[in-house]
Amino acid sequence: MSRSSAAETRTRSSPSAILAAPGGGRLRRRPRRDKPPPRPRAGAHGVAHMAAHGATPPPGLGEVRDAERRLRGRIHRTPLLTCAGLDHMAGRRLLFKCELLQKTGSFKIRGALNAVRSLVEESERTGRELPRAVVTHSSGNHGQALACAAQAEGIPAYIVVPRTAPQCKQDAIRAYGATLVPCDPTDKSRAETASSVVQETGGVLVHPNQEPAVIAGQGTIALEVLEQAPHVNAVVVPVGGGGMVAGIAVAIKALRPDVKVFAAEPSNVDDCYQSKVRGELTPNLQPRDTIADAVKTSIGPNTWPIIRDLVDDVVTVSEEEIKRATWLVWERMKLLVEPTAGVGLAAVLSERFQAVPWDVQNVCIVLCGGNVDLRSLTWLTDLSGKAE
Amino acid sequence: MSRSSAAETRTRSSPSAILAAPGGGRLRRRPRRDKPPPRPRAGAHGVAHMAAHGATPPPGLGEVRDAERRLRGRIHRTPLLTCAGLDHMAGRRLLFKCELLQKTGSFKIRGALNAVRSLVEESERTGRELPRAVVTHSSGNHGQALACAAQAEGIPAYIVVPRTAPQCKQDAIRAYGATLVPCDPTDKSRAETASSVVQETGGVLVHPNQEPAVIAGQGTIALEVLEQAPHVNAVVVPVGGGGMVAGIAVAIKALRPDVKVFAAEPSNVDDCYQSKVRGELTPNLQPRDTIADAVKTSIGPNTWPIIRDLVDDVVTVSEEEIKRATWLVWERMKLLVEPTAGVGLAAVLSERFQAVPWDVQNVCIVLCGGNVDLRSLTWLTDLSGKAE
Repeated sequence: MSRSSAAETRTRSSPSAILAAPGGGRLRRRPRRDKPPPRPRAGAHGVAHMAAHGATPPPGLGEVRDAERRLRGRIHRTPLLTCAGLDHMAGRRLLFKCELLQKTGSFKIRGALNAVRSLVEESERTGRELPRAVVTHSSGNHGQALACAAQAEGIPAYIVVPRTAPQCKQDAIRAYGATLVPCDPTDKSRAETASSVVQETGGVLVHPNQEPAVIAGQGTIALEVLEQAPHVNAVVVPVGGGGMVAGIAVAIKALRPDVKVFAAEPSNVDDCYQSKVRGELTPNLQPRDTIADAVKTSIGPNTWPIIRDLVDDVVTVSEEEIKRATWLVWERMKLLVEPTAGVGLAAVLSERFQAVPWDVQNVCIVLCGGNVDLRSLTWLTDLSGKAE
Repeated sequence: MSRSSAAETRTRSSPSAILAAPGGGRLRRRPRRDKPPPRPRAGAHGVAHMAAHGATPPPGLGEVRDAERRLRGRIHRTPLLTCAGLDHMAGRRLLFKCELLQKTGSFKIRGALNAVRSLVEESERTGRELPRAVVTHSSGNHGQALACAAQAEGIPAYIVVPRTAPQCKQDAIRAYGATLVPCDPTDKSRAETASSVVQETGGVLVHPNQEPAVIAGQGTIALEVLEQAPHVNAVVVPVGGGGMVAGIAVAIKALRPDVKVFAAEPSNVDDCYQSKVRGELTPNLQPRDTIADAVKTSIGPNTWPIIRDLVDDVVTVSEEEIKRATWLVWERMKLLVEPTAGVGLAAVLSERFQAVPWDVQNVCIVLCGGNVDLRSLTWLTDLSGKAE
């Protein structure tokens, strides 16, 4: 059921949108489920992006398999943990995929490293020079992940970060040897600053969630889950830009179409839910605040077609539900998840999820990250100066 | 190298001390390493304890193997995680045995469940009635663990708890269906209250760390580590009453005498260190306070001979070192360890550990528990009322 073999993959070179503007153009309304999503359209931004290097076709199972090969031995195979107390509360058997225990503290290293390794392989294959740098805009987990991936491959990384980003996140990015480029905390400033950094450095932009190689990398989570729990009936994935849920959906629906894929989203930033309801990409034009800060962003033109066609449903949850679920993971599982990772459990514990048939018994929840600002915790406040 | 086969185990019925007074009598000064530690002496407390049921000889490898069989499928096989950043700081490859992810949030379920299952097996073998109850004194992890184990086997549990114990710990014990019996926060009151509960209920006392079946249960950690990491060169174990380090030492030295066993202990309550230096059991008569509250207690007459003979060295650490190590596990590993679980990493990062030869490269650190009072964390303070 793979859309392309690994061999095919390497001969593709059609462009794909990386920094496409949100809401650009209407996409297929009622796609046929037996066909792959349409190929994302080309961007036209005058910015060097990965597709220009010919290494990143839109992702199908073949690309996820390629990503798995590229990542093997370079990242953790994270454990799948259970918790009897939470099973009892949910009335289902919960399987927690612990991506907070992944290198860099989140799943983002999968996509970032797949993107960087793709560039390296492409360079080896074609004899062309490696890009002079990789560039992204992110104050969070993707910024750390790209910095780490680039460091591993000896490529300079420039991370565009809003001036308002927490010091700890800036420190983490710097610790991986990347150069921080400050910008104003607006989408416009982020995009413009990233654009000019790409042009000044001769670098390549790796978008946090719309880059196909990033989407394929996140899809490797699904391959591991299917191996670790062949009895799984559903996977629940927090959705922001949609890179993770899209990658997972591509792999799951190719290999095990009987397994449901649910996106879980804060009600305050419910663009994915609204898009599914309307049948067209509907970004949050004025997103409200959410404690799940890592999914505040909207899905985009490359993740939307996959979500539209392959994600079974979107479950939205309130801020209170997210906080309670985060608390439960801390207390019952002893896992220091960030609130965004509480969104999946919140969805499964929500009243709305009761409508999911009870034969969907074994439910995998992706605990996507654990990059919490510990300095906001008083319990260890007097220690914060002591840690290196 | 087992001291006794499983068959032998079940025919033994010599008594062993459960609630023996600290510091009682001198023990062998210079034991021969090729012999097992001496059999602990009988207690004389008029309290029914497990040895009276003939199920718990002093532990050797045979008893640890029996415990492994009893626990199989009833507890988690906890993951062994790594962290490149902490490896770098230690200059060694660190392997973290994640007992905070164990059922009940700590390794204590191993010993408690082995004790309770031993009673059940003994009852099945002899046709005698099961004890009417199990009893212990513990405000912490052993109390929760015994409550959980007893609930699983349908035996009433009475946990003697100081009135000053945190509400969350009392709640957790109650959640496992146990009866809480309040006492004053003194050793004398704890022992006397437990004694009278045993007599009133016709129950059996399961000591938190001196009970041989408990020691053997904790030893199953070592069997898992040797399977998960055959290349391990050392194991570092926090020591309080010594049940965990004794059980681990028994198994490690029987199977892999080349693997070093280190006890890690807060300097503020360094009875294990002092005992090793003096060659005789030297309890803390007036223990100072420590953030690692779960190891504030002293080693006892049943764990001391094993520690004396089989533990290679004791490394003491300051309160600041414990806090810093705890912080590092939170920040770098995203694991919500309790400070006691930071003691092992603190030891490995300490200056004193630099004296350990560098060919001791693969070092397993037991992260023993994660039962932190989250309500003392303001980051989630507004959530505390929301969690069930």
